[in-house]
Amino acid sequence: MGPQVQTSCQVPKAKVAGTARIFSNSLQGQQLACRSPAAARPRAQRRITKSQATETGVEKVTSVDPELAETCINAIRFLAIDAVNKANSGHPGLPMGCAPLAFIMFHECMLYNPKDSSFFNRDRFTLSAGHGSMLQYAMLHFSGFDVTLEDCKNFRQLNSRTPGHPENFLTDGVEITTGPLGQGIANAVGIAAAEAHLAARFNKDGLDPLVDHYTWSILGDGCNMEGISNEAASLAGHWGLGKLIAIYDDNKISIDGHTDLAFTEDVGARFEALGWHVQHVADGNKDYPAIKKAIENAKACTDKPSLIRLETLIGYGSPNKANTHGVHGSPLGGEETGLTRENLGWKYGEFEIPKEVYDVYGDAQTRGKEAQQKWEANLEEYCKKYPEEGKEFKTMISGELPSGWADCLPKFGPEDKGLATRLHSQTMLNALAGVLPGFLGGSADLAPSNMTLMKAYGDFQKGQYQEKNFRFGVREHAMGAICNGMALHNKGLIPYCATFFIFTDYMRASIRMAALSEAGVIFVMTHDSIGLGEDGPTHQPIEHLASLRAMPNILMMRPGDGNETAGAYKVAVENCRGINKTGIPRPTVMAFSRQGMPNMSTTSIEGVEKGAYIVRGGDETPDVILMGTGSELSMAVEAAEKLEAAGKKVRVVSFVCWELFEEQEQSYKDSILPPSVENRVSVEAGSTFGWVKYTGAKGKNIGIDHFGASGPAPALYEWAGITVDAVVKAAS
Amino acid sequence: MGPQVQTSCQVPKAKVAGTARIFSNSLQGQQLACRSPAAARPRAQRRITKSQATETGVEKVTSVDPELAETCINAIRFLAIDAVNKANSGHPGLPMGCAPLAFIMFHECMLYNPKDSSFFNRDRFTLSAGHGSMLQYAMLHFSGFDVTLEDCKNFRQLNSRTPGHPENFLTDGVEITTGPLGQGIANAVGIAAAEAHLAARFNKDGLDPLVDHYTWSILGDGCNMEGISNEAASLAGHWGLGKLIAIYDDNKISIDGHTDLAFTEDVGARFEALGWHVQHVADGNKDYPAIKKAIENAKACTDKPSLIRLETLIGYGSPNKANTHGVHGSPLGGEETGLTRENLGWKYGEFEIPKEVYDVYGDAQTRGKEAQQKWEANLEEYCKKYPEEGKEFKTMISGELPSGWADCLPKFGPEDKGLATRLHSQTMLNALAGVLPGFLGGSADLAPSNMTLMKAYGDFQKGQYQEKNFRFGVREHAMGAICNGMALHNKGLIPYCATFFIFTDYMRASIRMAALSEAGVIFVMTHDSIGLGEDGPTHQPIEHLASLRAMPNILMMRPGDGNETAGAYKVAVENCRGINKTGIPRPTVMAFSRQGMPNMSTTSIEGVEKGAYIVRGGDETPDVILMGTGSELSMAVEAAEKLEAAGKKVRVVSFVCWELFEEQEQSYKDSILPPSVENRVSVEAGSTFGWVKYTGAKGKNIGIDHFGASGPAPALYEWAGITVDAVVKAAS
Repeated sequence: MGPQVQTSCQVPKAKVAGTARIFSNSLQGQQLACRSPAAARPRAQRRITKSQATETGVEKVTSVDPELAETCINAIRFLAIDAVNKANSGHPGLPMGCAPLAFIMFHECMLYNPKDSSFFNRDRFTLSAGHGSMLQYAMLHFSGFDVTLEDCKNFRQLNSRTPGHPENFLTDGVEITTGPLGQGIANAVGIAAAEAHLAARFNKDGLDPLVDHYTWSILGDGCNMEGISNEAASLAGHWGLGKLIAIYDDNKISIDGHTDLAFTEDVGARFEALGWHVQHVADGNKDYPAIKKAIENAKACTDKPSLIRLETLIGYGSPNKANTHGVHGSPLGGEETGLTRENLGWKYGEFEIPKEVYDVYGDAQTRGKEAQQKWEANLEEYCKKYPEEGKEFKTMISGELPSGWADCLPKFGPEDKGLATRLHSQTMLNALAGVLPGFLGGSADLAPSNMTLMKAYGDFQKGQYQEKNFRFGVREHAMGAICNGMALHNKGLIPYCATFFIFTDYMRASIRMAALSEAGVIFVMTHDSIGLGEDGPTHQPIEHLASLRAMPNILMMRPGDGNETAGAYKVAVENCRGINKTGIPRPTVMAFSRQGMPNMSTTSIEGVEKGAYIVRGGDETPDVILMGTGSELSMAVEAAEKLEAAGKKVRVVSFVCWELFEEQEQSYKDSILPPSVENRVSVEAGSTFGWVKYTGAKGKNIGIDHFGASGPAPALYEWAGITVDAVVKAAS
Repeated sequence: MGPQVQTSCQVPKAKVAGTARIFSNSLQGQQLACRSPAAARPRAQRRITKSQATETGVEKVTSVDPELAETCINAIRFLAIDAVNKANSGHPGLPMGCAPLAFIMFHECMLYNPKDSSFFNRDRFTLSAGHGSMLQYAMLHFSGFDVTLEDCKNFRQLNSRTPGHPENFLTDGVEITTGPLGQGIANAVGIAAAEAHLAARFNKDGLDPLVDHYTWSILGDGCNMEGISNEAASLAGHWGLGKLIAIYDDNKISIDGHTDLAFTEDVGARFEALGWHVQHVADGNKDYPAIKKAIENAKACTDKPSLIRLETLIGYGSPNKANTHGVHGSPLGGEETGLTRENLGWKYGEFEIPKEVYDVYGDAQTRGKEAQQKWEANLEEYCKKYPEEGKEFKTMISGELPSGWADCLPKFGPEDKGLATRLHSQTMLNALAGVLPGFLGGSADLAPSNMTLMKAYGDFQKGQYQEKNFRFGVREHAMGAICNGMALHNKGLIPYCATFFIFTDYMRASIRMAALSEAGVIFVMTHDSIGLGEDGPTHQPIEHLASLRAMPNILMMRPGDGNETAGAYKVAVENCRGINKTGIPRPTVMAFSRQGMPNMSTTSIEGVEKGAYIVRGGDETPDVILMGTGSELSMAVEAAEKLEAAGKKVRVVSFVCWELFEEQEQSYKDSILPPSVENRVSVEAGSTFGWVKYTGAKGKNIGIDHFGASGPAPALYEWAGITVDAVVKAAS
């Protein structure tokens, strides 16, 4: 019998029992009913015999000796079992079920260099089901990345390189941080988009392609339930990303129990509707040729992303826990591990890995090294033939910024027309587009409102991947994760993405993942306050500045005119590259106004770089300090004029970025906010939450701590009491 | 020719031009290519003739005189046009395109009482594409809700009842606040689930059903692109909510331009894969019988939710702007309005509505009144036959809480075993389940971790809608919106929903919508700090307490033991009903620990109700005040013991809910935090952002302002410096 790959997507709909009350464990019988035939066998018969090697057809998928191949597969299972047992915490189920897939993928189908995880043209892999991290660590360890057996023994321990979920900033060979479900597949879409873009831009006829790799992802039921994965998959289908191969580990078990409890949709048919090439492998446990054939088919389909729905048995090999949610997220324990050992014929001790296993997986080093050498020679030839493009391409490798790049950012004075900062942002984006070869991005269907189109470029679309304007549709969450994927594909790309500031709520998880995984992404957020007016409270950010200021490793910028917008972009680009006091790359969120505001003579890029600085009244110790951001900075200045007319000495501080100010020396901070001056007023059209840190207990905070309303912006400012007069009164 | 309803879902895939650079306006030609034949006609021929009345087959869908029916339809269009023009802001395109649908839906198919918008058994409607609010206001105004022509003239003005997006707390007849895309359809799923639940619980054979209505929603391209709508639709399909009827206004225009730019999936096929009954109406502009037939079919399909993909022309009737993104979100303007008037043969002036239009739509009052009277008589009979159930049902109408309900909440003392607050939460949920007839809810596939199962009930599933445990799957965003819909279906339901605290990031938009729309939902969030341990930084909340404390009209609770958990639930339930100092219903987010903590003798429900209160050292003015929340409250107490042993007078304040504390009198606040005591230390395993408000500039804040790590919880606390010794040191 040949490999059983179905390209149709008829998933039998599982039924939930009619009247019975269903709890987590009560569906066991029904689970079996809708499993693959192998899984449906009674447990006693599920013992795996020595003849499995031939049963699985392993000899058809690899030149490795069949028994040794089985050993290599079981090595994944037992390293996962042992590590989770030792940590007494973790998820053995997925690695046990996906071990055959991992062997075939990593050993037979993928190209990478374990001894140089930065090899540019490597295949990329994201484990969207990040809780199955031991699968990834096992593959990294066996094939020779810098992940040792000792690391695996320290699984989930503090300061180890094998944390509970894969973290790109900790572990060699991990492309991206995953764990929050659905993020990894959306990252993979971004990685595949980056590949398509760079391939279209740089590859040349007559030379081997500089950029030519696959992007792989393993996702589970949980990923497929999350909305972000549908958003990302819809875009991948739209873009026709043919080199994206996603394997859906369809094991029908989630934390609550059988997926029948909440997830009975036809996933394959959904992906087909999204424009994907969909295949079904009914027995992912033992039909190895079907797995390999499906991957080959996926590679052969070049105009659509591929989904392989692979039915597996979670915790495969465990006589009593396989196919239960008990093996999803808990250690097998000593007794069951012993039974599993016996069942799978695993004759090795705890953390004992036969040398041959390393030999087999270590092949990747030879393949990877050869591929890398060939690629490097090709790059050299490329650079000779195409010196300009070669130079540009090398910045994708190094992440180096062109010297003097920031000179493109214009300066403004009071004589320049006052504009909304979203319009200044457009100017900056277009200026940067001309000097930063890796600059690209777009909006979630708000390009004409966010002002994010780069006029020199067209749209990134199927057949025109070389273009740089991304049309993400109304898919904020996936947009963020896709940009994270692009940012982490290589050091050269600087993706930006845009929506209304309020909709950071829709993409907060992917913004946080950018911060955590040190992805240099610029989040362009316009319509940043009640100043957006008539759209009303559903569209008016209130708590968003505070909520993002509280997030680690990300900058929250709110510039107050053209110069500050230029400064915000300079800082943001530098931070994408880790050019900052921490040395760690970090993303930036920028809040821009819908409404106009005047340009000031005292604002500056240099000021922005300090986070907060004096824009008026810096000469002597003031009677009062006014602090403002964004559209309220000019309000503070107007108030200062009035107060000065009444004889007060007034200082106005622009507080464009709290995080940067916090990083300054205490002496600088004291020079801006002299401790002796306790009369302080902040004004910002957002929540006052947190401002007391700078205004002190005796200071006053003008802002809005309730929801907004629908109406013209000037009326709303009056209504909310955010006015020049209110500032004057508070300061008097 | 009969009505053209296709039940197949073959959507022709539109193509994006091969090499051309595409900007917003460059797709006009192609847009037409994939429109319905009528729309594809050159503009000059699109003039609508007097014979349209017969052309549309209007006489087949209504007993209203055909010309008058057309007038009723055009009245919607022109009221929207005029209101948007007058506001100089808004979205005329959707109301113009969906006017025929609205006439048929609201006049021919829906049941409601404009003179009593609280009629329990009314059909519910959510405008998921909330930007088209003038469509809804027009229907409310014409049919006789408390929305006047003057209100329509004040569209989008401050203090009007016709805000930019529909707001349930402002406008008679608006069920729910919409605008952020995808929320409304997810709310509709919640409303339909509430209907199914109450129908299954209360309806009796031999009596007319007490609960028996449809739930309607209009959603657009944007809604369909958002992940939340796919999550909600997947659940609706799983649950088989047969009385949910969603109309997809497929006008192929979004803000960026033609949907070909970013959205080419087969929406109909996707919904079929999700288990929906899908129909296609190719000409939603003029094929009125097809619209009606599709609705009839949808009603006839009782075991699946229905999607009607209705192709319409955005801005229908406008000779130069129809079918462009220019009419999506901008006023038509005087000139184009004149041309549209001419084109549609509208002979009335600005804001001039013929009396006959009110007469026609006013029919709903008679129908509604009769239905309501009949229903009320039925309810009376029901209450006689089934007094117990009748009494319970009436609490669904009134929202009254049973007297003494809070007595079910247990008290704890130090002798009781210390537990994780998630376990105390389970106790409270189960206690409340026994006394609150409207209490229901569940988790996003984390029931065994969140501890959220009510043991006396089974799972809400197809065929067992009377049950109360909801299995939301890994769909946090939809879960929140579904609970919002359930909460706003009637005054009696109190939905709760649960996930890990970190994943408030996935559902932040729906949490905010609960707060804004005054939906009494309880958000049960466990694993609330680095104390969750090994799962690592992707799962460890840091900034989440601060970010939710900054959100308006919502309580952020972090109880420190059993008594405080009881208090948190008491407050949360009361706030669902508006029993608080504001009188406005508000949701509550509760943060519960994974790890255990001791019970204290001095914690209390009464203390929790104040937001912050003294748990130790209240007798005299202290030398130092320690403040803690949740799992760090006992840490503060331990530190106090050490400090007292060293001779200090120490006060410990439990700061369980900042928002409640802010609402207390100044005298109470000063009694807890005497201004003279400036030595203050806060301890909380989260961001210190905001704490300076209570500790003052001279105080100290112990917390964690960077991302967490993977490791056992005790090691993480040491690593982060959140220890008893650190508190002692800071206080010394």
